[in-house]
Amino acid sequence: MRISTNQAGNRGWEQEELGSCIAGLPFFDHHCHGVVKNSLNRDDFESLISESSSPATPGTTRFDSNIGFQIRRLCAPVLGLQSFAEPDEYLEARSSLPTDTVNRLLMQQAKLSRLGVETGHSPDIITSPEELGHLASARSYEIIRLERLAEDIAQKLAADKAGDSRRLQECFIGKVQGSLVEAKNYAIGVKSIAAYRVGLDLDPARPTLKELELAVTEFVRTGGVRLEDPVIIRFLLWQAIDLGLAIQLHVGYGDDDVDLHRCNPLLMTELFRRTIHTGARFMLLHCYPFHREAGYLADVFPHVYFDVGLAVNYTGAQASQVIAESLELAPFGKILFSTDAYGLPELYLVGAELFRQGLTKALWRFHTESAWPIEEAMRVARMIAVDNAVRAYGIEE
Amino acid sequence: MRISTNQAGNRGWEQEELGSCIAGLPFFDHHCHGVVKNSLNRDDFESLISESSSPATPGTTRFDSNIGFQIRRLCAPVLGLQSFAEPDEYLEARSSLPTDTVNRLLMQQAKLSRLGVETGHSPDIITSPEELGHLASARSYEIIRLERLAEDIAQKLAADKAGDSRRLQECFIGKVQGSLVEAKNYAIGVKSIAAYRVGLDLDPARPTLKELELAVTEFVRTGGVRLEDPVIIRFLLWQAIDLGLAIQLHVGYGDDDVDLHRCNPLLMTELFRRTIHTGARFMLLHCYPFHREAGYLADVFPHVYFDVGLAVNYTGAQASQVIAESLELAPFGKILFSTDAYGLPELYLVGAELFRQGLTKALWRFHTESAWPIEEAMRVARMIAVDNAVRAYGIEE
Amino acid sequence: MRISTNQAGNRGWEQEELGSCIAGLPFFDHHCHGVVKNSLNRDDFESLISESSSPATPGTTRFDSNIGFQIRRLCAPVLGLQSFAEPDEYLEARSSLPTDTVNRLLMQQAKLSRLGVETGHSPDIITSPEELGHLASARSYEIIRLERLAEDIAQKLAADKAGDSRRLQECFIGKVQGSLVEAKNYAIGVKSIAAYRVGLDLDPARPTLKELELAVTEFVRTGGVRLEDPVIIRFLLWQAIDLGLAIQLHVGYGDDDVDLHRCNPLLMTELFRRTIHTGARFMLLHCYPFHREAGYLADVFPHVYFDVGLAVNYTGAQASQVIAESLELAPFGKILFSTDAYGLPELYLVGAELFRQGLTKALWRFHTESAWPIEEAMRVARMIAVDNAVRAYGIEE
Repeated sequence: MRISTNQAGNRGWEQEELGSCIAGLPFFDHHCHGVVKNSLNRDDFESLISESSSPATPGTTRFDSNIGFQIRRLCAPVLGLQSFAEPDEYLEARSSLPTDTVNRLLMQQAKLSRLGVETGHSPDIITSPEELGHLASARSYEIIRLERLAEDIAQKLAADKAGDSRRLQECFIGKVQGSLVEAKNYAIGVKSIAAYRVGLDLDPARPTLKELELAVTEFVRTGGVRLEDPVIIRFLLWQAIDLGLAIQLHVGYGDDDVDLHRCNPLLMTELFRRTIHTGARFMLLHCYPFHREAGYLADVFPHVYFDVGLAVNYTGAQASQVIAESLELAPFGKILFSTDAYGLPELYLVGAELFRQGLTKALWRFHTESAWPIEEAMRVARMIAVDNAVRAYGIEE
Repeated sequence: MRISTNQAGNRGWEQEELGSCIAGLPFFDHHCHGVVKNSLNRDDFESLISESSSPATPGTTRFDSNIGFQIRRLCAPVLGLQSFAEPDEYLEARSSLPTDTVNRLLMQQAKLSRLGVETGHSPDIITSPEELGHLASARSYEIIRLERLAEDIAQKLAADKAGDSRRLQECFIGKVQGSLVEAKNYAIGVKSIAAYRVGLDLDPARPTLKELELAVTEFVRTGGVRLEDPVIIRFLLWQAIDLGLAIQLHVGYGDDDVDLHRCNPLLMTELFRRTIHTGARFMLLHCYPFHREAGYLADVFPHVYFDVGLAVNYTGAQASQVIAESLELAPFGKILFSTDAYGLPELYLVGAELFRQGLTKALWRFHTESAWPIEEAMRVARMIAVDNAVRAYGIEE
Repeated sequence: MRISTNQAGNRGWEQEELGSCIAGLPFFDHHCHGVVKNSLNRDDFESLISESSSPATPGTTRFDSNIGFQIRRLCAPVLGLQSFAEPDEYLEARSSLPTDTVNRLLMQQAKLSRLGVETGHSPDIITSPEELGHLASARSYEIIRLERLAEDIAQKLAADKAGDSRRLQECFIGKVQGSLVEAKNYAIGVKSIAAYRVGLDLDPARPTLKELELAVTEFVRTGGVRLEDPVIIRFLLWQAIDLGLAIQLHVGYGDDDVDLHRCNPLLMTELFRRTIHTGARFMLLHCYPFHREAGYLADVFPHVYFDVGLAVNYTGAQASQVIAESLELAPFGKILFSTDAYGLPELYLVGAELFRQGLTKALWRFHTESAWPIEEAMRVARMIAVDNAVRAYGIEE
């Protein structure tokens, strides 16, 4: 056990003690998704522990990865197994229980107080925000995915074959605006996956009405299936900006659908510059391997926040370094916590537990090497765990 | 206390001992600015401890950041307070003393031997190189900002309304050339903020006379207020190259005026390739988060040097990692030290002290893990602290 | 000595013990080159321990760098000197022995079991794969450099002045295809230096026959001296893809010939996307400072592998951090080991030894901080050391 000898004259603390205090904080996972409700075979399970859309390379298994190892380490004991149980043993134990029980056991162990649940990704097969909150014994809040909202509206209009193109345009624009105004009542923010659909190097200007009308006509005419039109995506972002919403942005690392070199958050610098005084806030999600760049943006722009969710899960034993790197330029009041868990309750538990451990390790080092008083370390931990999100999303409790 | 067991057969050393030796080196801060001469209220002070041009996000303070914590840690004791005194307590103690006294107390504690003072940023409200050297008990040298020199000349020509455009062009070009020749007598180098004004992805070619004349006419005609013309900026760089000057370049991280994705030093590769044999030297400043890229350039180009100044100040408890990363590809003879301090004497002290501590930590690790003899570690420390800059700037002592 | 207290209930292990186990693995250096056969003076030697094509900056030596320090640390004892002997002392001891003896002593100490030897870079002055294997007591396998193969064919055609341009085109295309089919019998893979010649931002599409014919005519007409035509380079890559070959790609850091900002492996995302089901495999070499990006590609694309060779040698005391960073997103079954040694046997020994030490350090930390059982750490080490390469190259033993 390491005893602190910091210059600030605190009584001796130990790293484990700091860890316990941090573990006691009511973590607010500001960006996550529901969990799958049906049982899963090994292939299904493996496909949910990678961002790849391909099966594992022949001769390998998705369990031989940081996330796989952390599931065996942290989740196996929750199902009554030894830490680092073999994958088959783990999956067998998992299958022997009702899915709802597995979901509940693991979600409870994640020890989260609040969830910001994004509902735009395959909502039919996963739990709703309410169900998820219930499983986790946490308050849940909804986050609306902009692209899905636009697709839903366009598909309905396409199905209705309603009138001429001018009317379609007005309808689409009006319905988007209406839906977002309404969303303010029941959701805490919106999310954009512009990174996936068009890249973050999009024109920072608000689209003109003429551009927009042309784009809408084409989008509805082709059925509104998959929104990849940069004009409409910019329109959605500017609608959210005008309403002063909290806007989550997918940034950096994600699945093989993404062109990662077009997901550097710096590409949005000009948009951030133009929106400082609008009331809108931008929450940059994941950010790896551009988390240092995100920290810079969070420093210079008062309405930019970020997290390293997702990366924590997938970097496993290395998550502590990634978390430490996220504590460089950004003001401590601008750093958020999320798991970006999707589908598996394991991803909540692993994401939350690794974050707590990595944050503890970083803050303990700042205490021993840089003389941070333990109270200050705990104050920073509390900001990141919960206070920043509560303030940034304007949640009244 | 950790006792070394390195393979090279040295007597046992302790990390603290290495730290004392490093602290005894006469550090040459090759890039910094003056300090503010008037007293500061809390808002003024907070605005000087961030690269943002906006006030802190409502509900937060700039003190809740790495730089804020390090000021409380390292500067409070110099003003007679406990380490990690509260911000208001610190600012009160600071205000109770004459500004000159605060400046002197903190600058002295920075323990610098030589200063390369860049004079192009708001020189009216900060100390001159001479005043700064006096405060710090250090020798000071001047660094001329190219863009400001050009703006001063253009503004004078614009005010004089002197003659036709051909004459204006000749005048401008001649005066720039004359000023730079003259600068060789009293300054040790020049600095360019091309990164801020046009990005580092500028055309590596020397501008043609025709291009230059057109650009000059337009620049003077519009008053010479803010130089953002890439042709004139390239002209300035090539003038400095032709004179074989030491050329400091802003690279990477800076305030929100910068498009950071256009500040990657790799974008200047071709310019470096073309100037190997000119006698000019390039000093890449700050470089974060592109310091690994800068280290590569310092390895392959004999006339490229770099530092991680500014980033050391602003990454605080994480500065040791950034410093260690700066010790990867670059030959040890090509790494420089700077604080990039501006305005506050705190930034000198924090920048210098964090650099000494981070360098000590890195070199101690290289000693224990990689068997570097302590004498070799100290030889490398001395190069980085002072010898490299003395050699690279051609300073005769 | 640190004793492990991991949660998985293993008996106590020590880091040194893990290091010994790892050192006992039969490392497969999947990408390296031959060593120089003649004796070397100090200038020759220094030029081989940097990626720069320029001599060291006046007033400095290439020995004052991470690679220089590691040679003094790790190679001096092999030649009977103290660790960290002075450079001149080291070179004197080296010169006093026959070159073949030096090569053998150092190569043996590298303790490699298998070598993938790329033969496209100055093959006349270095050992052949067979000679190298003999020196190292390792099995050697050949890797064909695509650009050199094309240059050899074009130069022969140019010398033969054989017929009209249609015939030349057919000849060139046919000979490339024939050579690659033949290569399958005696080589384990091919290598492309597209990064050096055209950058990795090349068009992912297979070139049309018409484009190709035009490019071939021009290439042969101008003597086939240096292949810099993107169409022909894409043709070579697609030929290799069609044959389902293992394709090594230079990525990231290299000599000053490279535009490093065009060597980010993410620029090839679309090519990887299009080739998942072809049977071809891509081995991303070096990757620094884009190794995190490479890890992402190795995660999402089942046919992408990567290593941090070269960077290990040149980051020296910092190699352990680079290696740890390479263990983030990538599945453990997709990480390879190489030295990328060229010319000097020292680079084999240093590259191999630093990799073993850095891997040990990372895995030991994963054991103590993240509870990895030692058997699992060793299993991962074995994959990276040898099993992944054996599987990825389809080597039958």
